[in-house]
Amino acid sequence: MIKRSEVRKLQQRAADMYSRAGIVLTPAESENIEIAEFGLGHAHSEGLELVTYINTNIYCAKELALFPGQTCPEHRHPPVGGSAGKMETFRCRWGNVRLYVEGDPVSKPKAKVPEESRPYYTVFHEIELQPGMQYTIPSNTKHWFQAGPEGAVVSEFSSSSTDENDIFTNPNIERMPEITED
Amino acid sequence: MIKRSEVRKLQQRAADMYSRAGIVLTPAESENIEIAEFGLGHAHSEGLELVTYINTNIYCAKELALFPGQTCPEHRHPPVGGSAGKMETFRCRWGNVRLYVEGDPVSKPKAKVPEESRPYYTVFHEIELQPGMQYTIPSNTKHWFQAGPEGAVVSEFSSSSTDENDIFTNPNIERMPEITED
Repeated sequence: MIKRSEVRKLQQRAADMYSRAGIVLTPAESENIEIAEFGLGHAHSEGLELVTYINTNIYCAKELALFPGQTCPEHRHPPVGGSAGKMETFRCRWGNVRLYVEGDPVSKPKAKVPEESRPYYTVFHEIELQPGMQYTIPSNTKHWFQAGPEGAVVSEFSSSSTDENDIFTNPNIERMPEITED
Repeated sequence: MIKRSEVRKLQQRAADMYSRAGIVLTPAESENIEIAEFGLGHAHSEGLELVTYINTNIYCAKELALFPGQTCPEHRHPPVGGSAGKMETFRCRWGNVRLYVEGDPVSKPKAKVPEESRPYYTVFHEIELQPGMQYTIPSNTKHWFQAGPEGAVVSEFSSSSTDENDIFTNPNIERMPEITED
């Protein structure tokens, strides 16, 4: 549950970050930036600010913004219907992002696991993306990511997106949280 | 047929344009910008400078650069194997681009049809894209596009890309031209 006034503040902060990164949005896109706070009530720590450019039944493209140190919680995209589950390519456009996927864990992750949700971060194979660098995450693979100290803007190119099917490691997460009027 | 030295010059010019547009490429990506001159021998008039970020059997993402007034010739993406043919979303990032697709023609197109290839431009439904604006072209639909006076950088999000299957209106076009050493 998040208040409409808080959503507006986060949208404005994300719009400023997109602007600093040189990403041009239409006024309608800026006003409708999706605030994913995952129902956890601490969007500045665990959250994500998204613009979906296009999502067909084949391909999808989004722009993701993360505030400094903000984390998108661990999740995976399972098979849906007849298809393999969303596969996605993250390309860092601005700032930097630390991405964690299944595989050999690092002993000292550069990211700081959000204290409130520590048990729900379980994969620690680390990939650090600077602007111009990219990484492709296979279908149905657990992953989470956190912006560095400046924040990050990341282009996501993927197969079709069905956010409502995402499986989060943290059972308290609601991907589609309720917005309340003030 | 295009000389290696000419390819290098066009790559440098395109890299400068990507840089001005705030698009960060790795050194390897800059050195390998694809110069599509379509075998016509006048790349500054009809040509396209591309970076393919990812191309899987499901989705594809490219960054396209066009020099001022440069035109990507009319073509369509036909069905291939069992799939419907490439569907693509163009999002203007910088500069501006005039896109022409099948449909009601405009009487005075803003783009100037390349003189040498006039008979091979046959669709004139006009869409002008400024930064932040986008348009999705259905499968198997004829289209061509030309940059405005500053040039253009366009992100392309699409289903899987198989350039070798593209059908150009101009029968003289070779999508995969030969590069000769100087």
